[in-house]
Amino acid sequence: MTSSTMKAVVKSKPGLGAELLNVDIPEPGENEVLVNVKVTSICGSDLHIYKWNSWAKEHVKPPQIMGHEVAGEIVDVGKGVSSLHVGDFISAETHIPCGYCKQCRTGNRHICKNLNILGVDTNGTFAEYVVIPEVVAWKNDPSIPHLYASVQEPLGNAIDTVLAEDVSGKSVAIIGAGPIGMLAVGVARVSGATDIFVTDLNDYRLEIAQKMGATVTLNPNKSDVLTEIFAVTNGDGVDVVLEMSGNEAALIQGCQILTPGGRLSLLGVFDHPVTLELNKFIIFKGIRVYGITGRKMFSTWYKAANFLKSKTLDLSPVITHQFKLKEFEQGFDLMQSGMCGKIVLSI
Amino acid sequence: MTSSTMKAVVKSKPGLGAELLNVDIPEPGENEVLVNVKVTSICGSDLHIYKWNSWAKEHVKPPQIMGHEVAGEIVDVGKGVSSLHVGDFISAETHIPCGYCKQCRTGNRHICKNLNILGVDTNGTFAEYVVIPEVVAWKNDPSIPHLYASVQEPLGNAIDTVLAEDVSGKSVAIIGAGPIGMLAVGVARVSGATDIFVTDLNDYRLEIAQKMGATVTLNPNKSDVLTEIFAVTNGDGVDVVLEMSGNEAALIQGCQILTPGGRLSLLGVFDHPVTLELNKFIIFKGIRVYGITGRKMFSTWYKAANFLKSKTLDLSPVITHQFKLKEFEQGFDLMQSGMCGKIVLSI
Amino acid sequence: MTSSTMKAVVKSKPGLGAELLNVDIPEPGENEVLVNVKVTSICGSDLHIYKWNSWAKEHVKPPQIMGHEVAGEIVDVGKGVSSLHVGDFISAETHIPCGYCKQCRTGNRHICKNLNILGVDTNGTFAEYVVIPEVVAWKNDPSIPHLYASVQEPLGNAIDTVLAEDVSGKSVAIIGAGPIGMLAVGVARVSGATDIFVTDLNDYRLEIAQKMGATVTLNPNKSDVLTEIFAVTNGDGVDVVLEMSGNEAALIQGCQILTPGGRLSLLGVFDHPVTLELNKFIIFKGIRVYGITGRKMFSTWYKAANFLKSKTLDLSPVITHQFKLKEFEQGFDLMQSGMCGKIVLSI
Amino acid sequence: MTSSTMKAVVKSKPGLGAELLNVDIPEPGENEVLVNVKVTSICGSDLHIYKWNSWAKEHVKPPQIMGHEVAGEIVDVGKGVSSLHVGDFISAETHIPCGYCKQCRTGNRHICKNLNILGVDTNGTFAEYVVIPEVVAWKNDPSIPHLYASVQEPLGNAIDTVLAEDVSGKSVAIIGAGPIGMLAVGVARVSGATDIFVTDLNDYRLEIAQKMGATVTLNPNKSDVLTEIFAVTNGDGVDVVLEMSGNEAALIQGCQILTPGGRLSLLGVFDHPVTLELNKFIIFKGIRVYGITGRKMFSTWYKAANFLKSKTLDLSPVITHQFKLKEFEQGFDLMQSGMCGKIVLSI
Repeated sequence: MTSSTMKAVVKSKPGLGAELLNVDIPEPGENEVLVNVKVTSICGSDLHIYKWNSWAKEHVKPPQIMGHEVAGEIVDVGKGVSSLHVGDFISAETHIPCGYCKQCRTGNRHICKNLNILGVDTNGTFAEYVVIPEVVAWKNDPSIPHLYASVQEPLGNAIDTVLAEDVSGKSVAIIGAGPIGMLAVGVARVSGATDIFVTDLNDYRLEIAQKMGATVTLNPNKSDVLTEIFAVTNGDGVDVVLEMSGNEAALIQGCQILTPGGRLSLLGVFDHPVTLELNKFIIFKGIRVYGITGRKMFSTWYKAANFLKSKTLDLSPVITHQFKLKEFEQGFDLMQSGMCGKIVLSI
Repeated sequence: MTSSTMKAVVKSKPGLGAELLNVDIPEPGENEVLVNVKVTSICGSDLHIYKWNSWAKEHVKPPQIMGHEVAGEIVDVGKGVSSLHVGDFISAETHIPCGYCKQCRTGNRHICKNLNILGVDTNGTFAEYVVIPEVVAWKNDPSIPHLYASVQEPLGNAIDTVLAEDVSGKSVAIIGAGPIGMLAVGVARVSGATDIFVTDLNDYRLEIAQKMGATVTLNPNKSDVLTEIFAVTNGDGVDVVLEMSGNEAALIQGCQILTPGGRLSLLGVFDHPVTLELNKFIIFKGIRVYGITGRKMFSTWYKAANFLKSKTLDLSPVITHQFKLKEFEQGFDLMQSGMCGKIVLSI
Repeated sequence: MTSSTMKAVVKSKPGLGAELLNVDIPEPGENEVLVNVKVTSICGSDLHIYKWNSWAKEHVKPPQIMGHEVAGEIVDVGKGVSSLHVGDFISAETHIPCGYCKQCRTGNRHICKNLNILGVDTNGTFAEYVVIPEVVAWKNDPSIPHLYASVQEPLGNAIDTVLAEDVSGKSVAIIGAGPIGMLAVGVARVSGATDIFVTDLNDYRLEIAQKMGATVTLNPNKSDVLTEIFAVTNGDGVDVVLEMSGNEAALIQGCQILTPGGRLSLLGVFDHPVTLELNKFIIFKGIRVYGITGRKMFSTWYKAANFLKSKTLDLSPVITHQFKLKEFEQGFDLMQSGMCGKIVLSI
Repeated sequence: MTSSTMKAVVKSKPGLGAELLNVDIPEPGENEVLVNVKVTSICGSDLHIYKWNSWAKEHVKPPQIMGHEVAGEIVDVGKGVSSLHVGDFISAETHIPCGYCKQCRTGNRHICKNLNILGVDTNGTFAEYVVIPEVVAWKNDPSIPHLYASVQEPLGNAIDTVLAEDVSGKSVAIIGAGPIGMLAVGVARVSGATDIFVTDLNDYRLEIAQKMGATVTLNPNKSDVLTEIFAVTNGDGVDVVLEMSGNEAALIQGCQILTPGGRLSLLGVFDHPVTLELNKFIIFKGIRVYGITGRKMFSTWYKAANFLKSKTLDLSPVITHQFKLKEFEQGFDLMQSGMCGKIVLSI
């Protein structure tokens, strides 16, 4: 750190877009570390902030550095830090918990009542340096490539969605093949799902899903999803449905193909309230539904790390594009087009 | 059986009502027993059949003897019956499973793909005698009163709704104090729930809920349910919500008072599709939802029987009215008024 | 705090006994609070330290203030404390976790790899004042009596032993009616266990077990435990066995009465390795075994607090004796005799 | 069936060995089917019967046809059979349940109180034809090779041992690489275990384990198992231990490498009672132990069938030898030598 300033992608004011600015390098406070960012990846919520949609208006107060998916090296540690050292290669859990609310004290820190979110409530990772609280820092094995280490955070969403219950020896349908959906395909495959159906309107993304291990990919505009899935599953429907699209019609299709006694995980975020035939889809079929948000701290991270360290799970098909930090606008444009998987920025 | 005919409440033709008729006493076939009915209780679905609503039109083919909640004595056993004998005091699980579909073979016989329902698909229990398949017969301990033995069936619904997960040391809100809701209050109380909130628009039923162990009863027309529940729960909301009303507004209220990371069981049947803010109520709060229908065979029955045999659970506040079989019309009228708990018919 | 010294029961040197000494009142460090002790209760491990058995020799380094079960009031807060204030009425979790090992980060802080135990690795609660780390402080509801608040810690052991799985509507056998066994009886009763068998060689303790809700108490020296339990359970044996004696013969008896497919919780600490017919008792019967130590942080504490605040669970039969701090030796003598339940010291 | 007799391997009398005899082809009774055996595989319990060890003396009453792992075609169906037809390609669950005991009625048919075991309590599958009760018949997908279909039964043991809890993203140690241990390696691998350690004294079997997906194989006579496993697991030990050896010293080693909060499945059958430090290995580490026997009916079979149909799991490394039925003695000799995986007999 010869300089006292750094480059950062800053949401400097309300409205569309963001700016690459020179800002002061922050200092780590008590129980915090300073990280030299190597790689940071773009999440859907970053795009919301960039486009300044209604969710962003409510949650973000400019000026603020964007970004939260990260891999980097610790270059300074604040007072009281006991588990980390300068030189450690880390990523970060995005949900910064208070530690003392009922949720935090009963194994649910990811839904803390007083949650702060990295890059939403605090300065983020689209920068040369970022301050990370020790409590959310995750030390990576040196063998894991930076690119993959950064993607562990959304991989964690996929892990919790897939593994809300066991999938081994079961059939799974994944509704929506966005980046987390693609990751979920991989997680389902390595976790023993024997039939993996993936539906999406975007054929580019279905192709990536296939590379990640989907056994059947279906574009509802081109295929009769219900007929095809019931044919393959002997008329039983699937054991597990993972809703990752945030689309009401797709969710309803998911409910229709779910076998009685099956399980439904909900990760996709919906634009509006959803109308469902609860009797037919949930109650009379005896379905278990899991709302999924964030990642369980830190059992999910152990699984993600194990998948990557052991090379059980190959993320390369999902990481379709890499840009320099200063090219962030190209990343956002591409994300809007949908013709991409995960986009990664190198610092 | 000196006579070859018996009295039975028969849904003899489409339309409102039912008739008390003399019909032939049936004979037990292979793997069936003939039961002399002592007590049979009225379920909400019997009222649907009586009133001939849209569900009944779809599911019932007159003429058919109504009823399925039963306590009685075996007077004859068919060929192949191995576990039961003449003189046994039994009740019956209403869901008659095929035994060989995927659901039946994986612990979900209550949602069998080829389910027959006693009193809906077969002749029922509003009669002096009824034929019961051995596979759904449940042998009662002689110490259990007939009245309570008959009510074990809906008690089983309550048990599965309450105990989808543990409630001991937790706060529970029960939305809707119909007969199964009242039973659920008792199950929650004896299972260790420490705060039991019950909401209903009917004060008569709230009073019964209180007798069954509710710690706070709330009539949404008279109280601010949200304010009162958050006040008692230290702002956290409740750990468990049991939806037993089939009312959309009530379900939404249930979602609002449920603490992040909590559990929601759905038993109430809705008149129409339900519109829910899935993000806010289920996904971002990390909620687990269980659709409940029927009763798990037969772990639920063991629990019900243990509660009754040990006198841990007192059903007397719930059983508000008894009639003779021939007075069945009074029972149906009373049920429609809502000024009752469980109504029982003696033969 | 007009004085700068306080009275404390100190294990001042190796060997039998302890001393009441005047020592300096400690000061709370960062993330710590200073508590004015109102009530502190004696645990079996305190007796081990007092008697200086082999476990104590290995784990305790005199001089050290003894004790860890506590109820008191915060009189000072150290730097960085965010969730507690002077005047708060608190108890304390005894297991002080590091927060960063794999166990701590995956929901198992009670078995932290770098665990410190209050009163074993740090100065304890048999004193007028004690320093408690914020991370293990538990804020009590003001309505809970001091006596009961102190006993929440061993109550938590009982809760985790009983509720390793649901007991509602099931039969439970509790092997050993020491103080935690007695508490377990109460927890099982309020959690819906319908038959609660308790075995112990000490009739005084069996009487307390009965007051806490045991349905059958058995002294193996006077009764044929197996015959009696199989008679009551229809030849099936019990659904749940809770081993709380640390006695090999008693454990074997527990295994014999456990129904195939049942559950065994192990809390009692054994003097020596145990010889078991694993095939017959565990494998061929398809048994699930849970080793129980400490208390899950803090889901267990929420349950304990709810039981006490709601008065669902009455601890009064278990708290058989109260002494002044200076009378601690009488407490230890009584514990050795076995003619007591929980012994509580008032400051 | 032009002939009325068939060849069968019969345990004709107490003592070592068995005979190939001509016996009458049996007829299917009510709710039974007659199966033309295509392939039958040899289990360890068949070897016990062959060698006439103490277990066999207690459980088998000669003369009886041996064998229970099977794949074949239905050639006749008895009265009352509803789910099967002539021509169906089936395998069989070996545990024939009564259907009405408490275990059968609560999801534990595999540990039925009145269990009959195919080839132990009834005539078995080492024959040209065998009678199978409908309740234990399992219809195979035609795409599954006969060899693999027969091995589904021990594969089911492996599945229940591995999947007693989720293994995805976790480290697993498998103690003992006999045929079921080898199958467990494959199940663990396809179910997402990221480190799979296998220990055995037999290098031939360790090599098969490696082909099935073991990441580290260790011969305790040649390696320091503890040191190697702690080195790879960052000092944490493994998340899951599967005891499949029936050897006390090996079990103890398994307990030593299990991380606190981990899970232990016990499948291996021990020659004698086992002496364990319960405090150190189970209680203070908060371990969950699962006794595994038989296979859960039929959720386990669905998983096995899905693995095979989808070709997710390749059993070929495990099936090391094939013989004709008449060469059964060669099979038994080979099994005793230990220089084999699964041995299959063709009819």
